[in-house]
Amino acid sequence: MATVNENFLKLKEGYLFPEIGKRRSAFQRSHPEARIISMGIGDVTQPLAPVVIEAMHKAVDEMGEKETFHGYDDGGIGYPFLREAISANDYRSRGVDIAADEIFISDGAKSDTANSQELFGLDNIVAVTDPVYPVYVDSNVMAGRTGLMAAQGMYEKIIYMSATVDNDFVPQPLKERADIIYLCFPNNPTGAVATSEQLEKWVEYAKNNRSVLLFDAAYEAYIRDPLIPHSIYEIPGAKEVAIEFRSFSKTAGFTGVRCAFTVVPKELRVYSKIGQRVALNPLWSRRLCTKFNGVSYITQAGAAATYTSEGKKQIRDVIELYMNNARLIRETLAKLGYKTYGGVNAPYIWLKVPDGLGSWEFFDLLLTRAHLIATPGIGFGPSGEGYVRLTAFGEPEKVQEALERISRLA
Amino acid sequence: MATVNENFLKLKEGYLFPEIGKRRSAFQRSHPEARIISMGIGDVTQPLAPVVIEAMHKAVDEMGEKETFHGYDDGGIGYPFLREAISANDYRSRGVDIAADEIFISDGAKSDTANSQELFGLDNIVAVTDPVYPVYVDSNVMAGRTGLMAAQGMYEKIIYMSATVDNDFVPQPLKERADIIYLCFPNNPTGAVATSEQLEKWVEYAKNNRSVLLFDAAYEAYIRDPLIPHSIYEIPGAKEVAIEFRSFSKTAGFTGVRCAFTVVPKELRVYSKIGQRVALNPLWSRRLCTKFNGVSYITQAGAAATYTSEGKKQIRDVIELYMNNARLIRETLAKLGYKTYGGVNAPYIWLKVPDGLGSWEFFDLLLTRAHLIATPGIGFGPSGEGYVRLTAFGEPEKVQEALERISRLA
Repeated sequence: MATVNENFLKLKEGYLFPEIGKRRSAFQRSHPEARIISMGIGDVTQPLAPVVIEAMHKAVDEMGEKETFHGYDDGGIGYPFLREAISANDYRSRGVDIAADEIFISDGAKSDTANSQELFGLDNIVAVTDPVYPVYVDSNVMAGRTGLMAAQGMYEKIIYMSATVDNDFVPQPLKERADIIYLCFPNNPTGAVATSEQLEKWVEYAKNNRSVLLFDAAYEAYIRDPLIPHSIYEIPGAKEVAIEFRSFSKTAGFTGVRCAFTVVPKELRVYSKIGQRVALNPLWSRRLCTKFNGVSYITQAGAAATYTSEGKKQIRDVIELYMNNARLIRETLAKLGYKTYGGVNAPYIWLKVPDGLGSWEFFDLLLTRAHLIATPGIGFGPSGEGYVRLTAFGEPEKVQEALERISRLA
Repeated sequence: MATVNENFLKLKEGYLFPEIGKRRSAFQRSHPEARIISMGIGDVTQPLAPVVIEAMHKAVDEMGEKETFHGYDDGGIGYPFLREAISANDYRSRGVDIAADEIFISDGAKSDTANSQELFGLDNIVAVTDPVYPVYVDSNVMAGRTGLMAAQGMYEKIIYMSATVDNDFVPQPLKERADIIYLCFPNNPTGAVATSEQLEKWVEYAKNNRSVLLFDAAYEAYIRDPLIPHSIYEIPGAKEVAIEFRSFSKTAGFTGVRCAFTVVPKELRVYSKIGQRVALNPLWSRRLCTKFNGVSYITQAGAAATYTSEGKKQIRDVIELYMNNARLIRETLAKLGYKTYGGVNAPYIWLKVPDGLGSWEFFDLLLTRAHLIATPGIGFGPSGEGYVRLTAFGEPEKVQEALERISRLA
């Protein structure tokens, strides 16, 4: 008799975005004239950069000729031309020595952050921030590293570290032991960034506890402050304790193209039950070779084009456009008396809802009175109650109109 | 202390293709003039069909304009235009009712055959054929469903079903209980196909034992015999007991583009420990939404073009070309007195090596005396000893030359 993976049954229904969709549809039905503007989902709106389009056309043509056709990407870990461009431009340019064979190309940071837990034993204790990107949690639930969901939407056996205004939304290292710690900076959903000093403490904690940091840097391109690290590997010693996730989704508008990469340094080691040190770099490689067959040549060619000098300029211009949205959102909301966080080095604005309202109440208020969609903070964890997340990925004219509608609310 | 997934340490080093590469390189170094021809790796050589190239150029252009840009593929399970084309052309056209919401688009059949085991509890007993596509086994080793590798390259706790000349390379249902059974027809590596009668017995077995068949039909487009089923769902009742894997890799030359799909019928159920029946369709959807973010819009647009009438003709022409290779290989080898199997409804030819030689010895003979690469059958499992696998995916002129070299061996 085939039996189910019982851990899947522990998962609570994805509540957040379906519930948002339900409320949106209900409102639209009763108000068919309303032109709803979404500042909710973190998807980009600007088209791919011209250099990417050009490179992908060229790659498509290559795939149509026998002499230049590409079959399997050998080993399924990415073409050297892309891995070397990443090594040079994302790391060596910042004084960080990450070699091409420590970089693994994939179809998305979601896949990689979800799959990387497979490298670890089921008895590892997982720590996440609260609020949190749900993929870190759900992938560990599916694997069996948690108990059931207890009160307040938190799973048993996972350590939730509150990210609140009291700690500038950057939890400090734990007093207790955690073996795998997920950190995401710039943060989704709060838009917070971590300083070198804050990350140094986490690296120190990981060294002292022989823990591994799973560092999600998918939004690093949005950092404006020159003092904020873009990579965990800017912290001395981090290569011994951290995996880093990056993506072209938000950097170059690849949400519909699918390309990302994960860095697993050769120095990074964990432990076997009999105390042997085991390097994770060959294990991740082995996982990819067994369960994955690489990313489209056309996609990789497009991603590589973002590292040309023209490509860098073009993707920076799009990021500037989004960050102008973020600035406008922050400044307008401040003038209106709202308190916001994030949006300075990140494309997300974490808006404190007016006193006395919950996340969902403010969501309803924005929907019914301004025809705007935000994401209720409580959907990311209990410490998100009292906040909504706004994204800066909209088209500028729509962002402007959204802010005018909010102004008229006051 | 972060501990490793000890199951990864049970994996034997991928021996087969690295060893082939080592012997090839060593020979090439000592014989720099030798023009080695590979009939080893199952990668395609013909370029993408013109309709695919055209559709992908159009899709790339759409991604470059704000009005037609595509971000996240909602839900990460594939665009309706592709899922509906599959439903109509791969299933309804053969009298099989598979709906679009039972079809999930992915980046590859390797990913899907490796990931689908996550739906099942760790106590399920796995059965595979011998020889076997190693991904089925290795993904279960990584998950912890096996013991160590014992004698003859077989993992403890997995049931290996010999596929030999005695059963026409189609194992009959087991006497013992297995919960998850991997079947691949047309088969990699033997090139064997299963008849309706043979598959009916497996469906009956699965019903009687409440087992699930994981049916890999990645090579179905190579079936020539009209009596051979292309889909497990052509067998009555199969929707209650089988998942099916399909791919554009070999059908449309997408090995370097990455697109495949998995069918999880709504009728398919497994059991929880307390005896509840659990539908797998929503569980697979939940897995994809949590751990995957869909396939490139450009790739899906290209895949959909293979279902136009012009597209069907173009990909059939390429398959004809490969199957002409297969015929030539079979007929030439037969004339030379070799015994071969497969290659009639499959792109693989399973060649019985001359008496007294092992797989690797014949590999070495072909390499050193004819400068040809084959794949030693033993690399796919102990029952593969005494065979090599030849692929029909080569360019016709190289296949011809390879056969001339083999003729001169005699």
